Amino acid sequence: MKHLGYIGMGIMGRPMALNLLKAGYKVTVWNRTKAKADDVLAAGAGWADSPADVAQQCEAVCVNVTDTPDVASIIFGKQGIVEGNPGDTAGMVVIDHSTISPAATRDFAKRLHAYDIDMLDAPVSGGDVGAQAGTLSIMVGGEAETFERCLPIFQAVGKSITHVGPGGAGQACKACNQVLCALNLLGACEAMALAKSQELDLAKMIEVTSAGAGGSWQLANLGPKIAAGDLAPGFMVDLLLKDLEIVRAAGRDGQLAMLGTDTATNLFRAASNAGLGSEGTQALSAIIARLSDTKSGDD
Amino acid sequence: MKHLGYIGMGIMGRPMALNLLKAGYKVTVWNRTKAKADDVLAAGAGWADSPADVAQQCEAVCVNVTDTPDVASIIFGKQGIVEGNPGDTAGMVVIDHSTISPAATRDFAKRLHAYDIDMLDAPVSGGDVGAQAGTLSIMVGGEAETFERCLPIFQAVGKSITHVGPGGAGQACKACNQVLCALNLLGACEAMALAKSQELDLAKMIEVTSAGAGGSWQLANLGPKIAAGDLAPGFMVDLLLKDLEIVRAAGRDGQLAMLGTDTATNLFRAASNAGLGSEGTQALSAIIARLSDTKSGDD
Repeated sequence: MKHLGYIGMGIMGRPMALNLLKAGYKVTVWNRTKAKADDVLAAGAGWADSPADVAQQCEAVCVNVTDTPDVASIIFGKQGIVEGNPGDTAGMVVIDHSTISPAATRDFAKRLHAYDIDMLDAPVSGGDVGAQAGTLSIMVGGEAETFERCLPIFQAVGKSITHVGPGGAGQACKACNQVLCALNLLGACEAMALAKSQELDLAKMIEVTSAGAGGSWQLANLGPKIAAGDLAPGFMVDLLLKDLEIVRAAGRDGQLAMLGTDTATNLFRAASNAGLGSEGTQALSAIIARLSDTKSGDD
Repeated sequence: MKHLGYIGMGIMGRPMALNLLKAGYKVTVWNRTKAKADDVLAAGAGWADSPADVAQQCEAVCVNVTDTPDVASIIFGKQGIVEGNPGDTAGMVVIDHSTISPAATRDFAKRLHAYDIDMLDAPVSGGDVGAQAGTLSIMVGGEAETFERCLPIFQAVGKSITHVGPGGAGQACKACNQVLCALNLLGACEAMALAKSQELDLAKMIEVTSAGAGGSWQLANLGPKIAAGDLAPGFMVDLLLKDLEIVRAAGRDGQLAMLGTDTATNLFRAASNAGLGSEGTQALSAIIARLSDTKSGDD
Protein backbone atom coordinates (compact mmCIF):
# COMPACT_ATOMS: atom_id res chain seq x y z
CA MET A 1 0.00 0.00 0.00
CA LYS A 2 1.35 3.38 -1.05
CA HIS A 3 -1.52 5.82 -0.65
CA LEU A 4 -2.92 6.26 2.85
CA GLY A 5 -5.69 8.38 4.29
CA TYR A 6 -5.46 10.01 7.70
CA ILE A 7 -8.58 11.29 9.47
CA GLY A 8 -8.10 13.22 12.72
CA MET A 9 -5.40 15.89 12.98
CA GLY A 10 -5.20 16.00 16.78
CA ILE A 11 -2.24 15.89 19.14
CA MET A 12 -1.59 12.27 18.08
CA GLY A 13 -2.79 12.22 14.46
CA ARG A 14 -0.66 15.14 13.25
CA PRO A 15 2.75 13.74 14.23
CA MET A 16 1.74 10.23 13.11
CA ALA A 17 0.70 11.52 9.66
CA LEU A 18 4.03 13.39 9.44
CA ASN A 19 5.89 10.16 10.20
CA LEU A 20 3.95 8.36 7.45
CA LEU A 21 5.00 11.10 5.00
CA LYS A 22 8.62 10.76 6.16
CA ALA A 23 8.41 6.99 5.54
CA GLY A 24 7.53 7.72 1.88
CA TYR A 25 3.76 7.17 1.89
CA LYS A 26 1.44 9.38 -0.13
CA VAL A 27 -0.96 10.72 2.53
CA THR A 28 -4.37 12.33 2.08
CA VAL A 29 -5.94 13.89 5.16
CA TRP A 30 -9.28 15.13 6.39
CA ASN A 31 -10.13 16.88 9.64
CA ARG A 32 -13.26 18.62 10.93
CA THR A 33 -11.21 21.82 11.36
CA LYS A 34 -8.99 22.16 8.29
CA ALA A 35 -6.55 24.64 9.91
CA LYS A 36 -5.27 21.90 12.21
CA ALA A 37 -3.94 20.05 9.15
CA ASP A 38 -1.82 23.03 8.01
CA ASP A 39 1.61 21.65 8.93
CA VAL A 40 0.77 18.20 7.58
CA LEU A 41 -0.41 19.73 4.29
CA ALA A 42 2.77 21.87 4.22
CA ALA A 43 4.80 18.68 4.64
CA GLY A 44 3.26 17.28 1.44
CA ALA A 45 -0.06 15.66 2.37
CA GLY A 46 -3.12 16.10 0.15
CA TRP A 47 -6.51 17.34 1.36
CA ALA A 48 -9.82 15.56 0.88
CA ASP A 49 -13.23 17.13 1.41
CA SER A 50 -14.75 14.30 3.46
CA PRO A 51 -14.01 10.85 4.88
CA ALA A 52 -15.82 9.42 1.83
CA ASP A 53 -13.47 11.37 -0.42
CA VAL A 54 -10.43 10.05 1.52
CA ALA A 55 -11.72 6.48 1.24
CA GLN A 56 -12.24 6.69 -2.51
CA GLN A 57 -8.61 7.72 -3.05
CA CYS A 58 -6.76 5.51 -0.55
CA GLU A 59 -5.91 1.85 0.05
CA ALA A 60 -6.00 2.23 3.82
CA VAL A 61 -7.51 4.94 6.04
CA CYS A 62 -6.09 5.67 9.47
CA VAL A 63 -8.59 7.15 11.93
CA ASN A 64 -7.45 8.94 15.08
CA VAL A 65 -10.27 10.75 16.86
CA THR A 66 -11.53 11.02 20.43
CA ASP A 67 -14.39 8.69 21.20
CA THR A 68 -16.68 5.91 19.95
CA PRO A 69 -19.37 8.17 18.37
CA ASP A 70 -16.68 10.08 16.44
CA VAL A 71 -15.40 6.86 14.87
CA ALA A 72 -18.98 5.70 14.13
CA SER A 73 -19.73 8.98 12.37
CA ILE A 74 -16.51 8.96 10.31
CA ILE A 75 -17.12 5.41 9.11
CA PHE A 76 -20.90 5.16 8.82
CA GLY A 77 -22.14 8.79 8.89
CA LYS A 78 -23.05 11.23 6.13
CA GLN A 79 -20.06 11.54 3.76
CA GLY A 80 -18.47 8.79 5.84
CA ILE A 81 -16.02 6.14 4.67
CA VAL A 82 -18.65 3.64 3.51
CA GLU A 83 -20.80 6.23 1.77
CA GLY A 84 -20.49 6.73 -1.96
CA ASN A 85 -19.48 4.00 -4.38
CA PRO A 86 -18.77 0.77 -2.51
CA GLY A 87 -16.76 -0.42 -5.52
CA ASP A 88 -14.23 2.32 -4.81
CA THR A 89 -13.65 1.22 -1.23
CA ALA A 90 -13.75 -2.59 -1.58
CA GLY A 91 -10.53 -4.22 -0.34
CA MET A 92 -9.72 -1.16 1.70
CA VAL A 93 -8.57 -1.27 5.32
CA VAL A 94 -9.74 1.03 8.10
CA ILE A 95 -7.05 1.33 10.80
CA ASP A 96 -8.52 2.86 13.94
CA HIS A 97 -5.85 4.36 16.20
CA SER A 98 -8.47 5.95 18.50
CA THR A 99 -9.16 4.53 21.96
CA ILE A 100 -12.84 3.50 21.88
CA SER A 101 -15.23 0.78 23.02
CA PRO A 102 -14.12 -2.83 22.27
CA ALA A 103 -17.75 -3.92 21.83
CA ALA A 104 -18.53 -1.11 19.37
CA THR A 105 -15.29 -1.94 17.53
CA ARG A 106 -16.38 -5.56 17.03
CA ASP A 107 -19.70 -4.25 15.67
CA PHE A 108 -17.97 -1.76 13.34
CA ALA A 109 -15.67 -4.48 11.98
CA LYS A 110 -18.64 -6.75 11.28
CA ARG A 111 -20.60 -4.02 9.52
CA LEU A 112 -17.53 -2.97 7.46
CA HIS A 113 -17.08 -6.57 6.36
CA ALA A 114 -20.41 -6.26 4.47
CA TYR A 115 -18.77 -3.51 2.38
CA ASP A 116 -15.64 -5.62 1.73
CA ILE A 117 -13.69 -3.32 4.01
CA ASP A 118 -11.28 -4.81 6.57
CA MET A 119 -10.79 -3.18 9.94
CA LEU A 120 -7.90 -3.19 12.39
CA ASP A 121 -8.33 -1.64 15.83
CA ALA A 122 -4.91 -0.29 16.68
CA PRO A 123 -4.96 1.93 19.78
CA VAL A 124 -1.60 3.32 20.80
CA SER A 125 0.24 4.06 24.01
CA GLY A 126 3.17 6.42 24.48
CA GLY A 127 1.57 9.87 24.28
CA ASP A 128 2.37 12.82 22.04
CA VAL A 129 6.09 12.36 22.76
CA GLY A 130 5.93 8.80 21.40
CA ALA A 131 3.84 9.94 18.43
CA GLN A 132 6.44 12.56 17.49
CA ALA A 133 9.38 10.19 17.96
CA GLY A 134 7.63 7.31 16.17
CA THR A 135 8.11 5.12 19.24
CA LEU A 136 4.46 4.34 20.06
CA SER A 137 3.34 0.98 21.38
CA ILE A 138 0.52 -0.30 19.16
CA MET A 139 -1.84 -3.09 20.21
CA VAL A 140 -3.67 -4.43 17.18
CA GLY A 141 -6.88 -6.44 16.86
CA GLY A 142 -8.14 -7.96 13.60
CA GLU A 143 -7.35 -10.62 10.99
CA ALA A 144 -3.72 -11.81 11.02
CA GLU A 145 -3.48 -11.43 7.23
CA THR A 146 -4.70 -7.81 7.38
CA PHE A 147 -2.27 -7.11 10.23
CA GLU A 148 0.67 -8.45 8.18
CA ARG A 149 -0.39 -6.36 5.17
CA CYS A 150 -0.48 -3.19 7.32
CA LEU A 151 2.63 -3.88 9.43
CA PRO A 152 4.85 -1.47 7.44
CA ILE A 153 2.36 1.32 8.20
CA PHE A 154 2.57 0.57 11.93
CA GLN A 155 6.36 0.39 11.74
CA ALA A 156 6.42 3.93 10.35
CA VAL A 157 4.67 5.32 13.45
CA GLY A 158 5.46 2.88 16.28
CA LYS A 159 8.17 0.76 17.81
CA SER A 160 6.54 -2.03 19.81
CA ILE A 161 3.79 -3.48 17.60
CA THR A 162 1.78 -6.51 18.74
CA HIS A 163 -1.08 -8.36 17.09
CA VAL A 164 -3.04 -9.21 20.26
CA GLY A 165 -6.03 -11.05 18.75
CA PRO A 166 -9.18 -10.75 16.61
CA GLY A 167 -11.21 -7.59 16.00
CA GLY A 168 -11.73 -5.63 19.24
CA ALA A 169 -8.74 -7.25 21.01
CA GLY A 170 -6.61 -4.15 20.51
CA GLN A 171 -9.20 -1.96 22.23
CA ALA A 172 -9.72 -4.57 24.97
CA CYS A 173 -5.97 -4.62 25.60
CA LYS A 174 -5.86 -0.82 25.70
CA ALA A 175 -8.73 -0.86 28.22
CA CYS A 176 -6.66 -3.21 30.42
CA ASN A 177 -3.70 -0.86 30.02
CA GLN A 178 -5.76 2.08 31.25
CA VAL A 179 -6.94 0.13 34.32
CA LEU A 180 -3.29 -0.51 35.13
CA CYS A 181 -2.27 3.12 34.53
CA ALA A 182 -5.13 4.46 36.69
CA LEU A 183 -4.58 2.15 39.67
CA ASN A 184 -0.78 2.25 39.58
CA LEU A 185 -1.02 6.05 39.53
CA LEU A 186 -3.52 6.05 42.40
CA GLY A 187 -1.06 3.89 44.34
CA ALA A 188 1.78 6.28 43.52
CA CYS A 189 -0.29 9.30 44.62
CA GLU A 190 -1.38 7.74 47.93
CA ALA A 191 2.16 6.51 48.65
CA MET A 192 3.50 10.02 47.92
CA ALA A 193 0.87 11.59 50.21
CA LEU A 194 1.80 9.15 52.98
CA ALA A 195 5.51 9.82 52.42
CA LYS A 196 4.94 13.58 52.68
CA SER A 197 2.90 13.26 55.87
CA GLN A 198 5.69 11.09 57.33
CA GLU A 199 8.27 13.71 56.27
CA LEU A 200 10.15 11.20 54.15
CA ASP A 201 12.67 12.20 51.50
CA LEU A 202 10.36 11.72 48.48
CA ALA A 203 13.13 11.03 45.97
CA LYS A 204 14.56 8.32 48.24
CA MET A 205 11.14 6.72 48.74
CA ILE A 206 10.62 6.62 44.95
CA GLU A 207 14.12 5.22 44.40
CA VAL A 208 13.88 2.50 47.06
CA THR A 209 10.35 1.31 46.23
CA SER A 210 10.87 1.49 42.46
CA ALA A 211 13.63 -1.09 42.73
CA GLY A 212 11.34 -3.71 44.25
CA ALA A 213 7.83 -5.15 44.47
CA GLY A 214 6.27 -1.66 44.67
CA GLY A 215 7.76 -0.51 41.37
CA SER A 216 5.72 0.78 38.44
CA TRP A 217 6.14 2.96 35.35
CA GLN A 218 3.68 5.44 36.87
CA LEU A 219 5.72 5.85 40.08
CA ALA A 220 9.08 6.04 38.31
CA ASN A 221 7.87 8.56 35.71
CA LEU A 222 5.16 10.59 37.47
CA GLY A 223 6.40 10.29 41.09
CA PRO A 224 9.16 12.89 40.56
CA LYS A 225 6.65 15.22 38.86
CA ILE A 226 4.27 14.85 41.83
CA ALA A 227 7.17 15.61 44.19
CA ALA A 228 7.97 18.75 42.16
CA GLY A 229 4.31 19.84 41.91
CA ASP A 230 4.63 19.65 38.10
CA LEU A 231 1.15 18.96 36.69
CA ALA A 232 1.94 19.52 32.98
CA PRO A 233 0.68 16.76 30.65
CA GLY A 234 1.89 14.04 29.53
CA PHE A 235 -1.54 12.51 29.26
CA MET A 236 -4.51 14.67 30.26
CA VAL A 237 -6.93 13.87 33.10
CA ASP A 238 -9.98 14.32 30.82
CA LEU A 239 -8.65 11.85 28.25
CA LEU A 240 -7.93 9.21 30.89
CA LEU A 241 -11.40 9.83 32.27
CA LYS A 242 -12.89 9.22 28.81
CA ASP A 243 -10.90 5.97 28.58
CA LEU A 244 -12.02 4.89 32.08
CA GLU A 245 -15.66 5.30 31.04
CA ILE A 246 -14.90 2.93 28.14
CA VAL A 247 -13.36 0.54 30.68
CA ARG A 248 -16.40 0.78 32.95
CA ALA A 249 -18.77 0.06 30.06
CA ALA A 250 -16.67 -2.99 29.15
CA GLY A 251 -16.67 -4.03 32.82
CA ARG A 252 -20.45 -3.71 32.88
CA ASP A 253 -20.67 -5.89 29.73
CA GLY A 254 -18.63 -8.54 31.56
CA GLN A 255 -20.57 -8.03 34.84
CA LEU A 256 -17.29 -7.33 36.62
CA ALA A 257 -17.00 -5.75 40.07
CA MET A 258 -14.16 -3.26 39.47
CA LEU A 259 -14.01 -1.52 42.84
CA GLY A 260 -10.51 -0.17 42.35
CA THR A 261 -11.20 1.20 38.88
CA ASP A 262 -14.40 2.83 40.15
CA THR A 263 -12.55 4.50 43.03
CA ALA A 264 -9.85 5.80 40.69
CA THR A 265 -12.44 7.00 38.16
CA ASN A 266 -14.33 8.95 40.82
CA LEU A 267 -11.10 10.64 41.94
CA PHE A 268 -10.13 11.55 38.37
CA ARG A 269 -13.70 12.88 37.95
CA ALA A 270 -13.16 15.04 41.05
CA ALA A 271 -9.89 16.29 39.51
CA SER A 272 -11.73 17.24 36.33
CA ASN A 273 -14.53 18.91 38.32
CA ALA A 274 -11.88 20.90 40.19
CA GLY A 275 -10.68 22.39 36.90
CA LEU A 276 -7.73 20.03 36.46
CA GLY A 277 -9.08 18.23 33.36
CA SER A 278 -6.40 19.59 31.04
CA GLU A 279 -3.56 18.89 33.46
CA GLY A 280 -1.52 15.70 33.43
CA THR A 281 -2.97 12.61 35.09
CA GLN A 282 -0.59 13.16 38.06
CA ALA A 283 -2.98 16.00 39.05
CA LEU A 284 -4.76 13.17 40.91
CA SER A 285 -2.19 13.93 43.64
CA ALA A 286 -3.68 17.41 44.10
CA ILE A 287 -7.14 15.91 44.71
CA ILE A 288 -5.79 13.50 47.31
CA ALA A 289 -4.03 16.44 49.00
CA ARG A 290 -7.29 18.47 48.97
CA LEU A 291 -9.23 15.59 50.53
CA SER A 292 -6.49 15.21 53.14
CA ASP A 293 -5.28 17.52 55.86
CA THR A 294 -2.11 18.49 54.02
CA LYS A 295 -0.91 21.49 52.09
CA SER A 296 1.12 19.27 49.74
CA GLY A 297 0.20 19.37 46.08
CA ASP A 298 -1.92 22.42 46.66
CA ASP A 299 0.83 24.98 47.18
CA MET B 1 30.65 -5.76 65.89
CA LYS B 2 31.25 -9.51 66.09
CA HIS B 3 28.56 -10.89 68.37
CA LEU B 4 24.96 -10.42 67.27
CA GLY B 5 21.65 -11.40 68.78
CA TYR B 6 18.69 -12.54 66.67
CA ILE B 7 15.19 -12.57 68.10
CA GLY B 8 12.43 -14.09 65.96
CA MET B 9 13.00 -17.38 64.15
CA GLY B 10 10.20 -17.05 61.62
CA ILE B 11 10.13 -17.47 57.85
CA MET B 12 12.38 -14.39 57.50
CA GLY B 13 14.47 -14.49 60.69
CA ARG B 14 15.75 -18.05 60.27
CA PRO B 15 17.39 -17.61 56.83
CA MET B 16 18.69 -14.15 57.80
CA ALA B 17 20.34 -15.53 60.95
CA LEU B 18 21.87 -18.33 58.86
CA ASN B 19 23.33 -15.72 56.48
CA LEU B 20 24.84 -13.83 59.44
CA LEU B 21 26.50 -17.06 60.61
CA LYS B 22 27.81 -17.67 57.07
CA ALA B 23 29.26 -14.14 57.07
CA GLY B 24 31.30 -15.05 60.16
CA TYR B 25 29.30 -13.42 62.94
CA LYS B 26 28.85 -15.08 66.31
CA VAL B 27 25.03 -15.26 66.65
CA THR B 28 22.94 -15.83 69.77
CA VAL B 29 19.22 -16.42 69.23
CA TRP B 30 15.99 -16.42 71.18
CA ASN B 31 12.51 -17.38 70.01
CA ARG B 32 9.22 -17.92 71.83
CA THR B 33 9.13 -21.49 70.47
CA LYS B 34 12.65 -22.90 70.79
CA ALA B 35 12.10 -25.73 68.26
CA LYS B 36 11.89 -23.20 65.41
CA ALA B 37 15.52 -22.29 66.09
CA ASP B 38 16.76 -25.88 65.63
CA ASP B 39 18.44 -25.49 62.23
CA VAL B 40 20.01 -22.15 63.22
CA LEU B 41 21.38 -23.71 66.43
CA ALA B 42 22.65 -26.69 64.40
CA ALA B 43 24.43 -24.23 62.12
CA GLY B 44 26.38 -22.87 65.08
CA ALA B 45 24.23 -20.24 66.79
CA GLY B 46 24.01 -20.04 70.58
CA TRP B 47 20.77 -20.05 72.58
CA ALA B 48 19.74 -17.42 75.14
CA ASP B 49 16.91 -17.81 77.63
CA SER B 50 15.30 -14.40 77.07
CA PRO B 51 15.66 -11.17 75.07
CA ALA B 52 17.36 -9.69 78.18
CA ASP B 53 19.86 -12.56 78.11
CA VAL B 54 20.52 -11.95 74.38
CA ALA B 55 21.04 -8.23 75.03
CA GLN B 56 23.54 -8.80 77.82
CA GLN B 57 25.74 -10.93 75.55
CA CYS B 58 25.56 -9.05 72.23
CA GLU B 59 26.66 -5.76 70.67
CA ALA B 60 23.63 -5.58 68.40
CA VAL B 61 20.29 -7.38 68.54
CA CYS B 62 18.27 -8.00 65.38
CA VAL B 63 14.52 -8.31 65.93
CA ASN B 64 12.25 -9.91 63.34
CA VAL B 65 8.74 -10.52 64.62
CA THR B 66 5.22 -9.91 63.34
CA ASP B 67 3.66 -6.75 64.68
CA THR B 68 4.12 -3.61 66.82
CA PRO B 69 3.08 -5.17 70.18
CA ASP B 70 5.55 -8.04 69.64
CA VAL B 71 8.44 -5.59 69.20
CA ALA B 72 7.28 -3.54 72.21
CA SER B 73 7.19 -6.65 74.38
CA ILE B 74 10.63 -7.89 73.24
CA ILE B 75 12.25 -4.51 73.95
CA PHE B 76 10.34 -3.21 76.98
CA GLY B 77 8.50 -6.25 78.38
CA LYS B 78 9.35 -8.65 81.20
CA GLN B 79 12.80 -10.17 80.49
CA GLY B 80 12.96 -7.79 77.54
CA ILE B 81 16.05 -6.15 76.05
CA VAL B 82 16.12 -3.16 78.42
CA GLU B 83 15.40 -5.23 81.51
CA GLY B 84 18.24 -6.30 83.72
CA ASN B 85 21.45 -4.37 84.14
CA PRO B 86 21.37 -1.25 81.91
CA GLY B 87 25.18 -1.15 82.15
CA ASP B 88 25.34 -4.38 80.19
CA THR B 89 23.32 -3.02 77.28
CA ALA B 90 24.66 0.56 77.04
CA GLY B 91 26.07 1.30 73.55
CA MET B 92 24.10 -1.55 72.07
CA VAL B 93 22.03 -1.28 68.87
CA VAL B 94 18.57 -2.71 68.34
CA ILE B 95 18.00 -3.44 64.64
CA ASP B 96 14.30 -4.00 63.99
CA HIS B 97 13.69 -5.90 60.75
CA SER B 98 9.95 -6.31 61.51
CA THR B 99 7.33 -4.26 59.63
CA ILE B 100 5.58 -2.21 62.33
CA SER B 101 4.12 1.24 63.03
CA PRO B 102 6.40 4.20 62.12
CA ALA B 103 4.95 6.26 65.01
CA ALA B 104 5.55 3.48 67.56
CA THR B 105 9.05 3.05 66.15
CA ARG B 106 9.87 6.72 66.78
CA ASP B 107 8.60 6.29 70.34
CA PHE B 108 10.65 3.09 70.87
CA ALA B 109 13.82 4.79 69.58
CA LYS B 110 13.31 7.73 71.95
CA ARG B 111 12.70 5.48 74.96
CA LEU B 112 15.73 3.30 74.08
CA HIS B 113 17.90 6.42 73.93
CA ALA B 114 17.32 6.86 77.68
CA TYR B 115 19.04 3.47 78.16
CA ASP B 116 21.99 4.45 75.91
CA ILE B 117 20.69 1.99 73.31
CA ASP B 118 20.57 3.06 69.63
CA MET B 119 17.82 1.81 67.36
CA LEU B 120 17.62 1.31 63.62
CA ASP B 121 14.31 0.46 61.99
CA ALA B 122 15.23 -1.72 59.04
CA PRO B 123 12.19 -3.37 57.44
CA VAL B 124 12.94 -5.56 54.45
CA SER B 125 11.33 -6.35 51.13
CA GLY B 126 11.97 -9.39 48.95
CA GLY B 127 10.19 -12.19 50.79
CA ASP B 128 11.50 -15.52 52.05
CA VAL B 129 13.23 -16.12 48.70
CA GLY B 130 15.22 -12.89 49.16
CA ALA B 131 15.94 -13.76 52.80
CA GLN B 132 17.38 -17.15 51.79
CA ALA B 133 19.43 -15.72 48.91
CA GLY B 134 20.62 -12.73 50.96
CA THR B 135 19.21 -10.37 48.33
CA LEU B 136 16.69 -8.43 50.47
CA SER B 137 16.04 -4.73 49.99
CA ILE B 138 16.49 -3.00 53.35
CA MET B 139 15.15 0.50 54.07
CA VAL B 140 16.79 1.88 57.19
CA GLY B 141 15.77 4.69 59.54
CA GLY B 142 17.97 6.05 62.34
CA GLU B 143 21.18 7.99 62.99
CA ALA B 144 23.60 8.01 60.05
CA GLU B 145 26.52 7.07 62.32
CA THR B 146 24.65 4.03 63.68
CA PHE B 147 23.67 3.04 60.13
CA GLU B 148 27.31 3.15 59.00
CA ARG B 149 28.38 1.08 62.01
CA CYS B 150 25.76 -1.60 61.19
CA LEU B 151 26.15 -1.58 57.39
CA PRO B 152 28.25 -4.80 57.31
CA ILE B 153 25.41 -6.59 59.13
CA PHE B 154 22.91 -5.42 56.50
CA GLN B 155 25.30 -6.41 53.71
CA ALA B 156 25.35 -9.97 55.07
CA VAL B 157 21.55 -10.33 54.64
CA GLY B 158 20.60 -7.88 51.89
CA LYS B 159 21.62 -6.47 48.54
CA SER B 160 19.98 -3.06 48.11
CA ILE B 161 20.50 -1.18 51.39
CA THR B 162 19.37 2.44 51.75
CA HIS B 163 19.51 4.81 54.70
CA VAL B 164 16.22 6.64 54.08
CA GLY B 165 16.17 9.06 57.04
CA PRO B 166 15.89 9.42 60.83
CA GLY B 167 14.25 6.93 63.19
CA GLY B 168 10.90 5.71 61.83
CA ALA B 169 11.76 6.59 58.22
CA GLY B 170 12.47 2.97 57.35
CA GLN B 171 9.01 1.92 58.57
CA ALA B 172 7.40 4.92 56.84
CA CYS B 173 9.10 3.93 53.58
CA LYS B 174 7.97 0.32 53.99
CA ALA B 175 4.39 1.58 54.55
CA CYS B 176 4.61 3.50 51.25
CA ASN B 177 5.95 0.34 49.60
CA GLN B 178 2.95 -1.67 50.82
CA VAL B 179 0.51 0.98 49.48
CA LEU B 180 2.20 0.60 46.09
CA CYS B 181 2.16 -3.22 46.22
CA ALA B 182 -1.52 -3.33 47.21
CA LEU B 183 -2.79 -0.88 44.58
CA ASN B 184 -0.54 -2.12 41.77
CA LEU B 185 -1.78 -5.64 42.51
CA LEU B 186 -5.41 -4.48 42.60
CA GLY B 187 -4.81 -2.90 39.18
CA ALA B 188 -3.26 -6.12 37.89
CA CYS B 189 -6.19 -8.20 39.19
CA GLU B 190 -8.87 -5.92 37.70
CA ALA B 191 -7.01 -5.72 34.38
CA MET B 192 -6.71 -9.52 34.32
CA ALA B 193 -10.45 -9.90 35.08
CA LEU B 194 -11.28 -7.47 32.27
CA ALA B 195 -8.92 -9.28 29.91
CA LYS B 196 -10.56 -12.63 30.70
CA SER B 197 -14.06 -11.26 30.18
CA GLN B 198 -12.91 -9.82 26.83
CA GLU B 199 -11.39 -13.21 25.91
CA LEU B 200 -7.95 -11.70 25.47
CA ASP B 201 -4.78 -13.78 25.38
CA LEU B 202 -3.68 -13.08 28.98
CA ALA B 203 0.04 -13.62 28.36
CA LYS B 204 -0.06 -11.15 25.45
CA MET B 205 -1.93 -8.55 27.52
CA ILE B 206 0.68 -8.85 30.30
CA GLU B 207 3.52 -8.64 27.79
CA VAL B 208 2.17 -5.62 25.91
CA THR B 209 1.11 -3.57 28.94
CA SER B 210 4.22 -4.44 30.97
CA ALA B 211 6.38 -2.78 28.32
CA GLY B 212 4.66 0.60 28.73
CA ALA B 213 2.91 3.03 31.05
CA GLY B 214 0.82 0.22 32.61
CA GLY B 215 3.85 -1.79 33.72
CA SER B 216 4.51 -2.82 37.33
CA TRP B 217 6.46 -5.44 39.28
CA GLN B 218 3.14 -6.84 40.54
CA LEU B 219 1.75 -7.36 37.02
CA ALA B 220 4.98 -8.81 35.61
CA ASN B 221 5.52 -11.18 38.54
CA LEU B 222 2.01 -12.06 39.77
CA GLY B 223 0.06 -11.62 36.49
CA PRO B 224 1.30 -14.98 35.09
CA LYS B 225 0.45 -16.68 38.43
CA ILE B 226 -3.08 -15.19 38.30
CA ALA B 227 -3.43 -16.43 34.71
CA ALA B 228 -2.36 -19.93 35.82
CA GLY B 229 -4.60 -19.90 38.93
CA ASP B 230 -1.46 -20.35 41.07
CA LEU B 231 -2.19 -18.87 44.51
CA ALA B 232 0.93 -20.16 46.33
CA PRO B 233 2.78 -17.51 48.39
CA GLY B 234 5.14 -15.43 47.76
CA PHE B 235 3.81 -13.04 50.33
CA MET B 236 0.71 -14.05 52.29
CA VAL B 237 -2.61 -12.19 52.22
CA ASP B 238 -2.78 -12.02 56.04
CA LEU B 239 0.68 -10.45 56.31
CA LEU B 240 -0.12 -7.80 53.71
CA LEU B 241 -3.38 -7.16 55.56
CA LYS B 242 -1.41 -6.63 58.79
CA ASP B 243 0.87 -4.18 56.96
CA LEU B 244 -2.12 -2.35 55.44
CA GLU B 245 -3.56 -1.79 58.92
CA ILE B 246 -0.22 -0.18 59.85
CA VAL B 247 -0.55 1.97 56.72
CA ARG B 248 -4.10 2.96 57.62
CA ALA B 249 -3.08 3.94 61.16
CA ALA B 250 -0.26 6.07 59.70
CA GLY B 251 -2.73 7.58 57.22
CA ARG B 252 -5.08 8.40 60.10
CA ASP B 253 -2.19 10.08 61.95
CA GLY B 254 -1.61 12.24 58.86
CA GLN B 255 -5.36 12.81 58.33
CA LEU B 256 -5.02 11.43 54.81
CA ALA B 257 -7.94 10.33 52.61
CA MET B 258 -6.58 7.05 51.21
CA LEU B 259 -9.56 5.83 49.20
CA GLY B 260 -7.56 3.45 47.04
CA THR B 261 -5.73 1.88 49.98
CA ASP B 262 -9.03 1.47 51.83
CA THR B 263 -10.65 -0.26 48.84
CA ALA B 264 -7.69 -2.61 48.47
CA THR B 265 -7.62 -3.34 52.21
CA ASN B 266 -11.31 -4.23 52.22
CA LEU B 267 -10.80 -6.63 49.30
CA PHE B 268 -7.78 -8.29 50.97
CA ARG B 269 -9.93 -8.55 54.13
CA ALA B 270 -12.61 -10.30 52.05
CA ALA B 271 -9.93 -12.68 50.73
CA SER B 272 -8.85 -13.49 54.28
CA ASN B 273 -12.47 -13.93 55.38
CA ALA B 274 -12.95 -16.35 52.46
CA GLY B 275 -10.20 -18.58 53.85
CA LEU B 276 -7.44 -17.29 51.57
CA GLY B 277 -5.34 -15.62 54.29
CA SER B 278 -2.43 -18.04 53.92
CA GLU B 279 -2.43 -17.86 50.13
CA GLY B 280 -0.27 -15.47 48.14
CA THR B 281 -1.47 -11.88 47.74
CA GLN B 282 -2.50 -12.68 44.14
CA ALA B 283 -5.48 -14.52 45.74
CA LEU B 284 -7.10 -11.06 45.50
CA SER B 285 -7.91 -12.14 41.92
CA ALA B 286 -10.16 -14.93 43.27
CA ILE B 287 -12.17 -12.41 45.30
CA ILE B 288 -12.65 -10.14 42.27
CA ALA B 289 -13.78 -13.19 40.28
CA ARG B 290 -16.25 -14.15 43.04
CA LEU B 291 -17.71 -10.64 43.11
CA SER B 292 -18.00 -10.72 39.32
CA ASP B 293 -20.02 -12.87 36.99
CA THR B 294 -17.08 -15.01 35.92
CA LYS B 295 -15.80 -18.44 36.65
CA SER B 296 -12.20 -17.26 36.29
CA GLY B 297 -9.91 -17.64 39.28
CA ASP B 298 -12.46 -19.86 40.97
CA ASP B 299 -12.02 -22.99 38.89
